[in-house]
Amino acid sequence: MAIWVVVLWFAALTPLSSSSMITTPGFPSSAVKLKAEVQLSKGKLYEEKFFTQILDHFNYNPQSYHTFQQRYLINHKHWGGAAHNSPIFVYTGNEGDIEWFAQNTGFMFETAPHFKALLVFIEHRFYGKSIPFGGNKAAAYSNSSTLGWLSSTQALADYATLILDLKNNLSAPDSPVIVFGGSYGGMLAAWFRLKYPHVAVGALASSAPILNFDNITSPFSFNDIITQDFRSESENCYKVIKRSWQEIDDTAAKPGGLEILRKAFRICKNYISAGYLEGWLGTAFIYTAMTDYPTPTNFLNPLPAHPVKQMCKAIDDPKTGNNTFEKLYAAANVYYNYSGDATCFDLADDSDPHGLSGWTWQACTEMILLTDGNTVDSMFPPSNYSYNDRLQFCKDRFNVQPRPTWAPTEFGARHIHRVLKRFGSNIIFFNGLRDPWSGGGVLKDISKTVVAIVAKKGAHHVDLRFSTNEDPKWLKEVRKKEVHIISKWLSQYYHDLADSPNY
Amino acid sequence: MAIWVVVLWFAALTPLSSSSMITTPGFPSSAVKLKAEVQLSKGKLYEEKFFTQILDHFNYNPQSYHTFQQRYLINHKHWGGAAHNSPIFVYTGNEGDIEWFAQNTGFMFETAPHFKALLVFIEHRFYGKSIPFGGNKAAAYSNSSTLGWLSSTQALADYATLILDLKNNLSAPDSPVIVFGGSYGGMLAAWFRLKYPHVAVGALASSAPILNFDNITSPFSFNDIITQDFRSESENCYKVIKRSWQEIDDTAAKPGGLEILRKAFRICKNYISAGYLEGWLGTAFIYTAMTDYPTPTNFLNPLPAHPVKQMCKAIDDPKTGNNTFEKLYAAANVYYNYSGDATCFDLADDSDPHGLSGWTWQACTEMILLTDGNTVDSMFPPSNYSYNDRLQFCKDRFNVQPRPTWAPTEFGARHIHRVLKRFGSNIIFFNGLRDPWSGGGVLKDISKTVVAIVAKKGAHHVDLRFSTNEDPKWLKEVRKKEVHIISKWLSQYYHDLADSPNY
Repeated sequence: MAIWVVVLWFAALTPLSSSSMITTPGFPSSAVKLKAEVQLSKGKLYEEKFFTQILDHFNYNPQSYHTFQQRYLINHKHWGGAAHNSPIFVYTGNEGDIEWFAQNTGFMFETAPHFKALLVFIEHRFYGKSIPFGGNKAAAYSNSSTLGWLSSTQALADYATLILDLKNNLSAPDSPVIVFGGSYGGMLAAWFRLKYPHVAVGALASSAPILNFDNITSPFSFNDIITQDFRSESENCYKVIKRSWQEIDDTAAKPGGLEILRKAFRICKNYISAGYLEGWLGTAFIYTAMTDYPTPTNFLNPLPAHPVKQMCKAIDDPKTGNNTFEKLYAAANVYYNYSGDATCFDLADDSDPHGLSGWTWQACTEMILLTDGNTVDSMFPPSNYSYNDRLQFCKDRFNVQPRPTWAPTEFGARHIHRVLKRFGSNIIFFNGLRDPWSGGGVLKDISKTVVAIVAKKGAHHVDLRFSTNEDPKWLKEVRKKEVHIISKWLSQYYHDLADSPNY
Repeated sequence: MAIWVVVLWFAALTPLSSSSMITTPGFPSSAVKLKAEVQLSKGKLYEEKFFTQILDHFNYNPQSYHTFQQRYLINHKHWGGAAHNSPIFVYTGNEGDIEWFAQNTGFMFETAPHFKALLVFIEHRFYGKSIPFGGNKAAAYSNSSTLGWLSSTQALADYATLILDLKNNLSAPDSPVIVFGGSYGGMLAAWFRLKYPHVAVGALASSAPILNFDNITSPFSFNDIITQDFRSESENCYKVIKRSWQEIDDTAAKPGGLEILRKAFRICKNYISAGYLEGWLGTAFIYTAMTDYPTPTNFLNPLPAHPVKQMCKAIDDPKTGNNTFEKLYAAANVYYNYSGDATCFDLADDSDPHGLSGWTWQACTEMILLTDGNTVDSMFPPSNYSYNDRLQFCKDRFNVQPRPTWAPTEFGARHIHRVLKRFGSNIIFFNGLRDPWSGGGVLKDISKTVVAIVAKKGAHHVDLRFSTNEDPKWLKEVRKKEVHIISKWLSQYYHDLADSPNY
């Protein structure tokens, strides 16, 4: 059985699955136009600014004093101003271009008028335009001597420094800050509230698998949830996918077999192998499960509403009889070619439109989120989670040794209910149970103020997305609940401030 | 007016005050023998062990993977064991040899039997035997390229890593950890509970001036409190000290004046200047105020009970008439020569028996605790707090730029009552109001579980010292209260553990 896809957030570890769609998709058709685009067309969503950030906050070697330009996006439109101590909503940027996250975090734009909030989206170091070493990405990414400074703890320190400087410049020392983030950004938001409670009064951490370290949650849960997503649509769909891997291997092993696969999946002429093809299909299933939203979206790729259902519909289509490859090709098309523009698919393509490639480094140092276990019931081939595979990959790629116990040592994860029941406050953990990452999330309330919101039908940080007219009731309820909780945090803050303004 | 002593914890910034006593004092006479010695004579207080620690927890450069041997002291004698989840008391070592701190933290030894606690004293990186770069202190201290890794955040990460590894080795995952520390060690204990609540369930932070940054508390408070200590003993004592600086300057400026001063103060022949003499006297006043304990002690130097009172008694002694130098010499003798062995005092002496010299680096990077402001009422010459002096000193000494806003950015300090009222739990802040550092401490309860214990007559972390038969009632009460609060933390922890052992 071929070595399987190691999923690392949005960015999969190359070369195990270096494949991607060949066309950079445009926006979806007008029928699925989102409010985001409407707002974008009216005017700019934000201004772009830069902050001079220090390279290393935690040691004092001469090199640590080097600086880089960190990008942030800001929107003052609805801010009530410093005189009213109006709030500041900060997105703690994750592993990609901050504009991409801002454009997919409509929740902040849509709630800003209600809260009279200033909006700030801070880009994570080493991503987008926030590149150390003179902004030269090739230099910054060249090896472990430069990539070494790409770490979550440094990023959190960047955010604290930038936020306090910004508040100072705005003469708004008493404006409360709420942090928001989804996915790795959600982990950062939760951790930011835990580590910098004096900077942020609360955090909305959406789809943040902060427990997915060091076997604290199961390394099988990720693929179990994907399997369940597909199986919930149709048992046949699940069975077709489950048996397909052996068929691909068998075909590839036959003389002329790779050519059969190439034609069946419209793979471009430059490269094919069974492993890459399986990685390409696996990527489609994984990311479609993650973004199994109830409305049409264009986050990773343009997708219809309920894309897992659409994939299974394609697989179950009686017209394809029992031709597994034709069925799988049709399913893959939902993910890779919803716009219909692709003429062939390039398995060797490593384009990275959202600038996610730094994640591979993070996944080789501290973000050891093991997700590649497969039980015998998995729709993927059975496999144990493979820390040793990760170790070997990271050695080959960067000559770096992962520190798999460091994140839970630093941020806590084991017995989080017992720990945070008596410590901390004002965190919302949102998870959608169709999201494979939910297996590593906080799914039960910890205390009165550290709470879990769980949406049975939700996918990866769906709550943060721009609302649409087609949003289901449960999603509207989730957002309403979040707004309600944030309002309570702010009321309490203003009450405390009035009680003891100088204390 | 001469540039004044810049007080940095126990270790004063050389060369502004490089002077120290010439004889390394032995233990005090049998009349003032302490329980600590009794215990020491019965057998070893602790075993010495070493842990392989990583050089940099927060970046992933090749250099960050270097390791060093970190020392810790351990005492199992009273531990109830892993089977009973008995507690682990950890001292978060500060800026010196850990044995020195252990020997001056009797509170942990004396409460261990009651709590059936394992005792662990962890040495701070770059101090004692815990020296990176192969244990070679000269190499580790050579310049900012090596000293760079001496920082509080790295030290806290060391403690978390070591504690979790130790618990793992002891098969004691559910043994609750309580951290203890005094002075900078107290700051580390409080910060450790705030940053690593999943590792420590509570902290006793004694005499921890965590607010003494960035003008959050007044840079005049330190010398104001010293002045008040002396003035509370006698108005004449205060006046004599206050006028002495001008007399020293005037005498030094006269032909043969330095020789007059040398004779008056029994200064050895090798070196004298007015500035160094004033630094030498200032050091005596400052550290005597800090260690103005109600019983005889031998912490920095052997001292009688109530040493400030003894100094003032010497100054007020009618036998010395109005001879200011003779009065000051007698006062200085209380601090520098209580054992009576010294024949002359060496102003150029820079011996460092407790290994505190690394503090100068910390005071030049992140620990910008400004204490050198003097109002017109100060017993020292009036002066503004001088961040620029610090800046210049640090540039000259290490070519390093301090980061005065970083500690409060990372750890929080501004509006701490508002912040921690809604966040965090289980911290005791002890302060004695005769301790000049109390001006930067938390002096009022923040919440039901983040509390302040304030002793009007207390000095620098007096609560942590070994008890003696002469301890006053207020001191016994303070320790009783601390034991009571720690008992409550532990009861609650065991209750929670029983409620949800795997959660």
